Amino acid sequence: MAASDFKTWMGDVQAQMESALSIFLPASTQLPERLHDAMRYSVLDGGKRVRPLLTFAAGHLVNAPAERLQAAAAAVEMIHAYSLVHDDMPAMDNDVLRRGKPTVHVAFGEATALLAGDALQAAAFDVLSERQLADSPADQLKMVHLLARAAGSLGMCGGQGIDLYSVGQALTLPELERMHILKTGALIRAAVLLGSYCGQPLSEAERHGLDHFAKCIGLAFQVVDDILDCEADSATLGKTAGKDAANNKPTYVALLGMKGAKDKAAELKQAAFDALLPFGERAQYLHALAGYIVDRKY
Amino acid sequence: MAASDFKTWMGDVQAQMESALSIFLPASTQLPERLHDAMRYSVLDGGKRVRPLLTFAAGHLVNAPAERLQAAAAAVEMIHAYSLVHDDMPAMDNDVLRRGKPTVHVAFGEATALLAGDALQAAAFDVLSERQLADSPADQLKMVHLLARAAGSLGMCGGQGIDLYSVGQALTLPELERMHILKTGALIRAAVLLGSYCGQPLSEAERHGLDHFAKCIGLAFQVVDDILDCEADSATLGKTAGKDAANNKPTYVALLGMKGAKDKAAELKQAAFDALLPFGERAQYLHALAGYIVDRKY
Repeated sequence: MAASDFKTWMGDVQAQMESALSIFLPASTQLPERLHDAMRYSVLDGGKRVRPLLTFAAGHLVNAPAERLQAAAAAVEMIHAYSLVHDDMPAMDNDVLRRGKPTVHVAFGEATALLAGDALQAAAFDVLSERQLADSPADQLKMVHLLARAAGSLGMCGGQGIDLYSVGQALTLPELERMHILKTGALIRAAVLLGSYCGQPLSEAERHGLDHFAKCIGLAFQVVDDILDCEADSATLGKTAGKDAANNKPTYVALLGMKGAKDKAAELKQAAFDALLPFGERAQYLHALAGYIVDRKY
Repeated sequence: MAASDFKTWMGDVQAQMESALSIFLPASTQLPERLHDAMRYSVLDGGKRVRPLLTFAAGHLVNAPAERLQAAAAAVEMIHAYSLVHDDMPAMDNDVLRRGKPTVHVAFGEATALLAGDALQAAAFDVLSERQLADSPADQLKMVHLLARAAGSLGMCGGQGIDLYSVGQALTLPELERMHILKTGALIRAAVLLGSYCGQPLSEAERHGLDHFAKCIGLAFQVVDDILDCEADSATLGKTAGKDAANNKPTYVALLGMKGAKDKAAELKQAAFDALLPFGERAQYLHALAGYIVDRKY
């Protein structure tokens, strides 16, 4: 598809999501106001919304209604946002800058950051179960289970744990890969699959292919993150650059070198493209997104 | 019912829950082991299991199968456990003793405590959506939504926020009540209602009555907690006693005096009993539990 069409579509989804998230999150006027302020601060007006874009692009495959996709994507984005809030805290990465703004614990204090993250995770499951999002309630329960598994200790939290316990350790490439498949891959996979549950059912083979696409793009996303963390400066990135190397964290760049990491990202992009072939034209947004994720500069 | 029968039933539910929770939680041998160790440490081998007992007692009203109740109760207990892990952290209450053992951040470090709490919340929604727990998937989705709402910023997290922001402030009785309805009441209410969804459907009037029971008992639980925090010593309580007063937190005892708080607990117990009258003999465990919750010594 034309780059300008893709850009228009992205802008439209991002605007829809800003508005949907604002509606799904409790208002700042609701008690406790400070907690709701912190939740809204961490979620609204920032981020590229990569996961929601993936949900919408997958939803396009199955003709899913926008209202369903908004809720499913909001759930994923709330999980993502809470993980950033907690990850930035002094006990974890101790980061002060996120999306160009002070992190939540800097702006609101540690106790509120802890609570806001906790409440955002609950809000994700709230929005995922409040209204009809799939043709059958049984499929919607599968969506809940998929997100819970992706977020938990066998998904994102597990990846963060492996990351935490491997600081200063020499990981092998398979170990690094396993960490990232959980840490960022699981939620990206959930973003794609959740979108696909919001419309007409896919065949088993189709769901399998989409799942493979999601896994490739999830890993590619992390490889590119490592590359950008090395190359970009903090102003472009909107967060502290070079912190992984400074924290002695294992990265693809450290293991494969810059050229090796870039080759790996290109291979994963191609594998993702291949997985989309059976879907034809319906996969146009997923295709464009895969390119965008790998070729982005921040 | 006879006190000995109630005690036998309690012991049976507690044993069932210990075993069910052990199965639902990822094994300590699964990667990342340290995270799973911390999750298991915080959930297993401790606690009175008040919320699971309520789930089972409500399940008895509707002839719910034990396997369903185990999963529903485990979900509630995981939410409860995660809230304790995070609440004990230095950024919040900074407590070192819980159920007679070092708190999770003391035993495993702050970063693992943060992650373990996060992963436990996800695990709750995982277990609540993994297998059939209600006669219809639509009812099970309602269970998910009920727990999410009870756990989030309009429930437990919201109550913790109000608690946090009211330290050192003079709360009125209605304000204190509102805080506790959210902080402990919401999850206790969820424990009761989730149990009632696991079996034969209740009528609207019955569900309303059960909900009223749950609200009374949730508030009574907190009033008694405040009383015990003043009266008991740390050894009996298994956690640091007197910390609310030391932290200058508002309590029922501070607002009503010791006699006033005890009268309040007795009133709430009576109101809970009254709400159970229409259920007759089927409510025997709920009735006995209400007595147990209010008359407990730790």
